[in-house]
Amino acid sequence: MNVLEAIATTRAIRRYRPDPISDDDLATILFSATRAPSGSNRQPFRFLVLRDGPRARQAKALLGESFRAGWAEKRAEDGYDRGSAVAEGSPKARTARAMQHFVDHFEETPVVVLACLVRYRAPNPYEGASIYPACQNLLLAARALGYGGVLTQWHAFVEAELRTLLEIPDGVTISATIPLGRPMGRHGPVRRRPLPELVFDDVWEQPAPYV
Amino acid sequence: MNVLEAIATTRAIRRYRPDPISDDDLATILFSATRAPSGSNRQPFRFLVLRDGPRARQAKALLGESFRAGWAEKRAEDGYDRGSAVAEGSPKARTARAMQHFVDHFEETPVVVLACLVRYRAPNPYEGASIYPACQNLLLAARALGYGGVLTQWHAFVEAELRTLLEIPDGVTISATIPLGRPMGRHGPVRRRPLPELVFDDVWEQPAPYV
Repeated sequence: MNVLEAIATTRAIRRYRPDPISDDDLATILFSATRAPSGSNRQPFRFLVLRDGPRARQAKALLGESFRAGWAEKRAEDGYDRGSAVAEGSPKARTARAMQHFVDHFEETPVVVLACLVRYRAPNPYEGASIYPACQNLLLAARALGYGGVLTQWHAFVEAELRTLLEIPDGVTISATIPLGRPMGRHGPVRRRPLPELVFDDVWEQPAPYV
Repeated sequence: MNVLEAIATTRAIRRYRPDPISDDDLATILFSATRAPSGSNRQPFRFLVLRDGPRARQAKALLGESFRAGWAEKRAEDGYDRGSAVAEGSPKARTARAMQHFVDHFEETPVVVLACLVRYRAPNPYEGASIYPACQNLLLAARALGYGGVLTQWHAFVEAELRTLLEIPDGVTISATIPLGRPMGRHGPVRRRPLPELVFDDVWEQPAPYV
């Protein structure tokens, strides 16, 4: 798949077929992730892959709880149960249904990747420059091979238990939890704002003539 | 260009030909950046493009100072001027020469993109999940079109002056400064650790049989 096409069509995928991801495909996806840049090329990224091993199964159960808690919180906070959101067929109602399905079936996700960062200095808002480019490579490579996933932070509710179970050492943070699998149903479009709202030229908020 | 090839061959590029980036290519690169995922699809990323407008020229001069200060600090801290690093032809000596050239010629960089994040909550180590995937898309799209760049944080030394000059509002952070241009000289390989050092399966540090 052409890189520009992959970039333009990679979207969050939250419904998966039960098919596993083949070893070869998993290796390609992870190789792609690790080609990403990082500060001073330190490569502080580590990928802990959860398939159906003994710890993975327990970890997926913990994560299932955590994702359901995450969605319950968001559902309440972002008004998914009031106003236009409850109208059958509205975009918000569709999102709510898809999210509920996603978290209810989390344990069945074929592969869950924990994208971890080995810190070498205090936590700070810019450390993500050494892990999230790798996550994007991972998602693009998955897309190229016919898989889909989503970059999430919803491990937060069970982080302590998860770290103990998976023996993740101090000094390592879980920067993202990425479920992966073959998309179920149609793929759907990538919804983003028009370019002129996101790109400025020469000075803040000055329109860029080329977009 | 195939997406897996683009991912495997995108490396930091710090020497640029003087050629500008065409409007069409710039639009494609920025479109690609903005297709990235972000938390709740909020799309808090903004790209401020510095070409050769009046503010851009001043900003590049400020950034040139900042990059030279950044490199001077790193050069001292990371021992680029002692031991094996001073041996002519050693990898460290080559890096030092390339970095010195990069910062000395910073003002000539055809395009500099400031990747900015509009914050909606307090700064935190995970906010990068909504900006650095976009930066990686940008670099991959640039690669596909024959350009190269590098993800840096070296605006830090002049951030206050830069924000004033470019009228970047409070509540917006500069998450990365990305110089871009046509690579000068040969492209060079992507140097990364072997996959088994970076990927674990089922539990921390357990080797993954598929890598």
